[in-house]
Amino acid sequence: MSKGLPKRSEDYSSWYNELVKRAGLAENSPVRGCMVIKPYGYAIWEKMQRVLDDMFKKTGHSNAYFPLFIPKSFLSKEADHVEGFAKECAVVTHYRLKNAEDGSGVVVDPEAKLEEELIVRPTSETVIWNTYKTWIQSYRDLPLLVNQWANVVRWEMRTRLFLRTTEFLWQEGHTAHATAEEAIAETEQMLEVYAEFAEKYMAVPVIRGVKTPNERFAGAIETYCIESLMQDGKALQTGTSHFLGQNFAKAFDVKFATKEGGLDYVWGTSWGVSTRLMGALIMSHSDDEGLVLPPNLAPIQVVIIPVFFNETQLSQISEKATAIKKALEAKNIAVKYDNRDTQKPGWKFAEYELQGVPVRIAIGARDLENGTVEVARRDTKEKATYPLENLEEKVADLLNTIQENIYQKALNFREENTTKVDSYEEFKTLLDTKGGFLLAHYDGTSETEEKIKEETKATIRCIALNTTPEAGVCMVTGKPSNQRVYFARAY
Amino acid sequence: MSKGLPKRSEDYSSWYNELVKRAGLAENSPVRGCMVIKPYGYAIWEKMQRVLDDMFKKTGHSNAYFPLFIPKSFLSKEADHVEGFAKECAVVTHYRLKNAEDGSGVVVDPEAKLEEELIVRPTSETVIWNTYKTWIQSYRDLPLLVNQWANVVRWEMRTRLFLRTTEFLWQEGHTAHATAEEAIAETEQMLEVYAEFAEKYMAVPVIRGVKTPNERFAGAIETYCIESLMQDGKALQTGTSHFLGQNFAKAFDVKFATKEGGLDYVWGTSWGVSTRLMGALIMSHSDDEGLVLPPNLAPIQVVIIPVFFNETQLSQISEKATAIKKALEAKNIAVKYDNRDTQKPGWKFAEYELQGVPVRIAIGARDLENGTVEVARRDTKEKATYPLENLEEKVADLLNTIQENIYQKALNFREENTTKVDSYEEFKTLLDTKGGFLLAHYDGTSETEEKIKEETKATIRCIALNTTPEAGVCMVTGKPSNQRVYFARAY
Repeated sequence: MSKGLPKRSEDYSSWYNELVKRAGLAENSPVRGCMVIKPYGYAIWEKMQRVLDDMFKKTGHSNAYFPLFIPKSFLSKEADHVEGFAKECAVVTHYRLKNAEDGSGVVVDPEAKLEEELIVRPTSETVIWNTYKTWIQSYRDLPLLVNQWANVVRWEMRTRLFLRTTEFLWQEGHTAHATAEEAIAETEQMLEVYAEFAEKYMAVPVIRGVKTPNERFAGAIETYCIESLMQDGKALQTGTSHFLGQNFAKAFDVKFATKEGGLDYVWGTSWGVSTRLMGALIMSHSDDEGLVLPPNLAPIQVVIIPVFFNETQLSQISEKATAIKKALEAKNIAVKYDNRDTQKPGWKFAEYELQGVPVRIAIGARDLENGTVEVARRDTKEKATYPLENLEEKVADLLNTIQENIYQKALNFREENTTKVDSYEEFKTLLDTKGGFLLAHYDGTSETEEKIKEETKATIRCIALNTTPEAGVCMVTGKPSNQRVYFARAY
Repeated sequence: MSKGLPKRSEDYSSWYNELVKRAGLAENSPVRGCMVIKPYGYAIWEKMQRVLDDMFKKTGHSNAYFPLFIPKSFLSKEADHVEGFAKECAVVTHYRLKNAEDGSGVVVDPEAKLEEELIVRPTSETVIWNTYKTWIQSYRDLPLLVNQWANVVRWEMRTRLFLRTTEFLWQEGHTAHATAEEAIAETEQMLEVYAEFAEKYMAVPVIRGVKTPNERFAGAIETYCIESLMQDGKALQTGTSHFLGQNFAKAFDVKFATKEGGLDYVWGTSWGVSTRLMGALIMSHSDDEGLVLPPNLAPIQVVIIPVFFNETQLSQISEKATAIKKALEAKNIAVKYDNRDTQKPGWKFAEYELQGVPVRIAIGARDLENGTVEVARRDTKEKATYPLENLEEKVADLLNTIQENIYQKALNFREENTTKVDSYEEFKTLLDTKGGFLLAHYDGTSETEEKIKEETKATIRCIALNTTPEAGVCMVTGKPSNQRVYFARAY
């Protein structure tokens, strides 16, 4: 058996990196900053995609596909957008290679230089709004509700598997509406879709809020977000939904004939989640033994492991195991029966613990005699002996219990690590000791926000939606404030 | 109503381009050679993906994801591969833009030049085999059965929507095996998966065969393919499956400890189909009125259209239509009820004909009285009055009939357009008059193959599998030949 993982309490960052690699989720690629998503990791991502895609379609969206490349000039068309995105980009300048004259391999053909460089999309607002110009003529063409599953590239200097990679996978919704109200309703609806997905499927509780102007998406009027707390007390932004106003419509001249006979610019939104969600999922629940997956997203929900000393025992156990597998599958439970004889049961126990399989069923010779099995939960590590009778229903119930328990545990953790703070000194001390979300008053200015960020590395994660106003004073400047906001150090 | 499509018989190429655009399948993007896949086109592609993905998983494959970028030096590692692929590629040379000093927009930052250029993947053998080196140590790690859904880029000079675009979407399977026999069995299995998909879902009959050495994938020992015939008499390669031998294992030093205690290079395969399948689907079945979709891949299988003169009628019809929709959906049929009052029934009829919806149900006031509906088939344009009783079963049967009929029609067309030819003169005449597949003898040399290609633009599409040997003489050189091969002009 391989040596254990680093402990979270000793080195959280190494624990995360090692876990991602050893559990077969992802690894670094030879291309700096790009990752290889391994089959087990990709299977989780596929489950996420399937659930999200169904939610998008249920709310009326269709998928489409837009080009990987964006002409460089497009990036300059929306003034704020260019500042935010036209920086660390992969730039395609040539379209041909040729054999090196010295036979050393291939070299870029200097004659195949592009007239205008192409940017590998860091996000697709520009190329999509350029297309919408031809798709939208009249109010009858609205709303236009489109989503795209794609890869995007942002040239990051410091990368970490899933959390920040140069290339990542995501979905980006881009919608167009006849009125500001409709577009805002869409922005809020998609935030709620993300929040529901995070809480019900990922079992990750989230704070729903809006960003301060400093932290807004480049080109948005308002950026909504969901924020989660990881086990090391750092926050992670898990999804964003942007109200774009008429900014991109104006930049790309997208107008529509209104019902009333006028001509107006279209109102837009965009919203996205990425493979970063994998990072949130891993960091929210996992422990020093490995991954802990919520049953709703586990590619294998139940693993059955035979404990045997000879072929006869294995064949008797296999008969029982196969029947159990079938009964569980009839209840739509994803089951793996691992009957390999190349690995010992203890090795398998550790392996599936590392992979976060929610429920393990072990069957030995004594179980056969007693008509029982041993059922172990990954989340609490509790073991119990279950009779075979109605096993599938009990396991189905157990999966629900685990899903709920993982969520509740994460919620309790967040509540224990959300602290109201009234003085800047206490704020700084808490950041270095306890971490977590700090609820504090600030005067609402960019200057104060910047100062806090510079001095403490904490940022305003969001101004929560539906918070009760509370009169107070800015912890830094003493100026009046009418609500607390969420601060944290973040990924 | 918009003006009709160009006629196939008059201008097949314009007919195709216009159909793709007007039916809402795809359009050209501002980036030369790249397409926008529109929602309706993407919905068909999604159905294709879902079916294929299920077939891949049923045959034991898992999905994973590898980087978009390939270090330039990787391309040179396999000698044949570099000749085939390291040519017309998108090359990333820089990773940053900056504001132009004259304020005119953004320019490439000359200081952000990459040490080694990155190539946007034209295919992923190199980056994947480089990764397999670390994944494979022993025979216990084999077979390794991985697939990837991804976008790839090949800088094409002449592009056509779906058929040949600079960026396209595809899947690429990459497997590793302990023996040549196993790898060949995998290559053949995946060819059969593609053939089954083409015939049962796309309703496109295919010839299963192998390519001549001239037409092989760069780096393969043997390239298997499926070939289809389009309505204009040109062939289209719809899928390929490659036996790579140990070529990539040797290029990337991927060895494994054999069961017998030795050390050997791994045997590889790769196989792929792309959005080109959309082109095959469109061109195989569609007519001068628009798209004809096989029910198994139609995003909308049945459309219900109310024929009404006032609100009261519409509300009565809607009640009936909603019940029919529900009953059809209970049989897993995808139904759309189009009750818009902004468009007339005739407009809708033409629109869904253009979109290739297999079955149209129209309900008018008289139908309500009689307890009937009017059912129209897209493939034959036949209309019939159906009683409401058991309508869902009759429609389900009709969808099966249409699926079968479309396939049979395409098969008949192919058979009528496959001609045995024995003289080179006849060969040339037939190519210019009838087109289609020409079954002819050739002497098996590259020289003759090249000569025919140069003189006639026809290529050997494949040497069909399981053909009966037949003694003959090469139509060009008169040298002996032991089997006929498939020639055609091709897309």
